[in-house]
Amino acid sequence: MKKIVIATSNPGKLNELQAMLGPLGIETIAQSAFNIADAEEPHDTFLENALVKARHASRATGLAALADDSGLCVESLGGDPGVHSAYYAGREGGRHERDPRNNTRLVSQLRDQINRCAFYYCVLVLVHSATDPTPLVAEGRWHGEIVLDPRGEGGFGYDPHFVPRGSHLTAAQMPAEEKNRASHRAQALAALARSLRAA
Amino acid sequence: MKKIVIATSNPGKLNELQAMLGPLGIETIAQSAFNIADAEEPHDTFLENALVKARHASRATGLAALADDSGLCVESLGGDPGVHSAYYAGREGGRHERDPRNNTRLVSQLRDQINRCAFYYCVLVLVHSATDPTPLVAEGRWHGEIVLDPRGEGGFGYDPHFVPRGSHLTAAQMPAEEKNRASHRAQALAALARSLRAA
Repeated sequence: MKKIVIATSNPGKLNELQAMLGPLGIETIAQSAFNIADAEEPHDTFLENALVKARHASRATGLAALADDSGLCVESLGGDPGVHSAYYAGREGGRHERDPRNNTRLVSQLRDQINRCAFYYCVLVLVHSATDPTPLVAEGRWHGEIVLDPRGEGGFGYDPHFVPRGSHLTAAQMPAEEKNRASHRAQALAALARSLRAA
Repeated sequence: MKKIVIATSNPGKLNELQAMLGPLGIETIAQSAFNIADAEEPHDTFLENALVKARHASRATGLAALADDSGLCVESLGGDPGVHSAYYAGREGGRHERDPRNNTRLVSQLRDQINRCAFYYCVLVLVHSATDPTPLVAEGRWHGEIVLDPRGEGGFGYDPHFVPRGSHLTAAQMPAEEKNRASHRAQALAALARSLRAA
């Protein structure tokens, strides 16, 4: 496996993945270089969503494919927003319109909860082909707590309300380099790199 | 999570899992203690098969559930027998009738192949509930080579034809303790224990 297609249309994720895979001698191609629609209904798990995306990209290109899926899981909400993180308050609008609505809904759900423990979750799935029976799976969990009052302008999604364990800053207040060293995605990327070196 | 149901009807697997989970303070209950049918059609990946079994057991019992799925993947056969390992030569008969037929088919497929590299694969999936968005996944791969002439009486499945890397014995010739330290299932169990301690 020397060449893989990255099943994401998010330029930030693409850069992170390319930076990690380059040193392993793997050439990456963005899904956008092909004509691949990425509309997929969410499954019950991040894992299955990533698997569907990776398979879809591999089938369309004939290449190995890497996909990710991620979101926020809140303990007292039974794991919600979970796989619905991006559309927790509905599917209308772009990311910049959905983020504030999602955060408003999260805060209203948690106002009367004492337990505000949560974790950001990221899973990466690499398939060698669309019928690969043994996809490589790597995950990362970033544990912390939800605060009702938003703080910070960086990051995206629920970052202004998420205070990682051991920090007094929200993820949106952290310098980008600090977030990118500690985050759920960073942990998943590190785990994937370990698996690729071992394989 | 203090009590989990083990979604397998194989007593050997059950013993191994109980021995590993006990020291972590987790009480295990065999699926057979409930009235759970375990007939499931195979999916394209071991991962999805294990996920379906774990979810099924969790839904039926209301408990957290652990399932495994495993098989042999041969490089020059594009990953076959893969998820069809148990039924490679058909679904008729019990395990003791299927094993020799499966091995006969494997040997006939590989007779003219120069590359006989293969690995045994095992994946374990632990769900906290039937709708858990972030199941814990642990895998193990036992790399080796297929030999055409069977050797040994131990183990089961393709073991008489599988020579692990670094060994001159087939898996069926190895003492059980040696196999249970090195095997795909042992590796997956070790990885699961690491994840449970970290979680």
